[in-house]
Amino acid sequence: MKAITSRDNPTVRRLRALAGSARERRKLGQSVLDGAHLITAALDAGWTLRELAISEQGLQSAEIVRLAERCAGTSCEVLRLPDAVLAQISPVDTPAGILASFDLPAEPAPRAFTDSLLVLDGVQDAGNLGAILRTAAAAGIQDALLSPGCAQAWAPRVLRAGMGAHFALRIHERADLAAALAGYPGQVLATALRDDSWDLYELDLRAPVAWLFGAEGQGLSPEALALASRHVRIPMPGRLESLNVGAAVAICLFEQLRQRRDMPTR
Amino acid sequence: MKAITSRDNPTVRRLRALAGSARERRKLGQSVLDGAHLITAALDAGWTLRELAISEQGLQSAEIVRLAERCAGTSCEVLRLPDAVLAQISPVDTPAGILASFDLPAEPAPRAFTDSLLVLDGVQDAGNLGAILRTAAAAGIQDALLSPGCAQAWAPRVLRAGMGAHFALRIHERADLAAALAGYPGQVLATALRDDSWDLYELDLRAPVAWLFGAEGQGLSPEALALASRHVRIPMPGRLESLNVGAAVAICLFEQLRQRRDMPTR
Repeated sequence: MKAITSRDNPTVRRLRALAGSARERRKLGQSVLDGAHLITAALDAGWTLRELAISEQGLQSAEIVRLAERCAGTSCEVLRLPDAVLAQISPVDTPAGILASFDLPAEPAPRAFTDSLLVLDGVQDAGNLGAILRTAAAAGIQDALLSPGCAQAWAPRVLRAGMGAHFALRIHERADLAAALAGYPGQVLATALRDDSWDLYELDLRAPVAWLFGAEGQGLSPEALALASRHVRIPMPGRLESLNVGAAVAICLFEQLRQRRDMPTR
Repeated sequence: MKAITSRDNPTVRRLRALAGSARERRKLGQSVLDGAHLITAALDAGWTLRELAISEQGLQSAEIVRLAERCAGTSCEVLRLPDAVLAQISPVDTPAGILASFDLPAEPAPRAFTDSLLVLDGVQDAGNLGAILRTAAAAGIQDALLSPGCAQAWAPRVLRAGMGAHFALRIHERADLAAALAGYPGQVLATALRDDSWDLYELDLRAPVAWLFGAEGQGLSPEALALASRHVRIPMPGRLESLNVGAAVAICLFEQLRQRRDMPTR
């Protein structure tokens, strides 16, 4: 385990830049994971880490020591830092004693999508985006398409809210939604509160669906709305006629799941 | 419209304290709302505001000017502040040009609950709590019970994420969950990933349900779990076996809604 003490160490400076700047992450093609839970999820999914940076206090945790042992002898360099140096790198307010850097995955190859998809247009809130990816991964979705207006999927805050979802999905960033959905064999459903919207619970959702969700507030852009084969509304009997986009995604994906469970095996 | 220019004005200092401190909010029995949308929702719901504080820039917005006109002649005092003074009060990073103070509602009277309920144990994240209240209000829930370990429901960040839900619900803070659920005539369902948990989609949810959700991470406390008449699991076929608590709430409440829509009218 290599000890680093200076805040001006080039590795420390790089990690700090990765934690704090979307531009640096893109430029270097790397990002950082914070905390033992996420790092374990990445290793379990077969990801290779570049560096594991552990604070003195982190070394008191048996879970973190096990992660260090797991990386020893691999290409991942294990670094030991004073608490204050790690705290200054870490993207979270309460640093968990460990963070890791990793190479961003290559953009997944373009493919003809045939199964259900998550398609996000302009979802900029990092916490929302992460929670939505987590819901999609739990629902068994394999591919997530993100329009250029979405937050960077690999930002530390999105990774944290994703709780491992990033390692279970193929994430297509800066996707050309129209091109990606051209020739899609299933329905393209967009949630929209319109008079001509279909009631979610009256639709047959057993066949593949590309689920299109827009940004909180603005909703879908006209270009994205135009891609929809149908507009869907979630019936809301309460005095509030709006849902957080993360709640809408959960309701739609799990309603599809419910219907599919009754699907006769073919 | 009264003009205030000094940061040291007593009203400015009180508003700043309300925006920044849970203790001050409790001590004074007041809180603040940020932005025209929330303030409109409060007025539409018949709430009385104490003060409306508008920045110079806010006065450029027709929507904000209409709110000022709506409050003129009422007991609500309308104040005009330099942009920098409002920015320093405001709990958000990008102040919306208007905020309002209001008296916290009286704790709703204890009642014998007979319809479906939202019961939260230790949900501390403000954004999560607000989004959950919003989902509950959209689903038509009337009462939300919050254990003493939950975040303060009337904190500005919770109000903002709630998007008006606070004005559509009866919120019972620091609730004694065991006392409140004693004698509840319906099922008390707690989401828990246990071997003996019931599959959400195999339960009949048409009768009233008290829905019990715990904190992200820890889940429900043993005391809260013991209140459940059944444990429920949301089936997750994906590679990720966990959901954000907000997503879990949305899936459960809207599954109940779906089942209830098919209920014959009596």
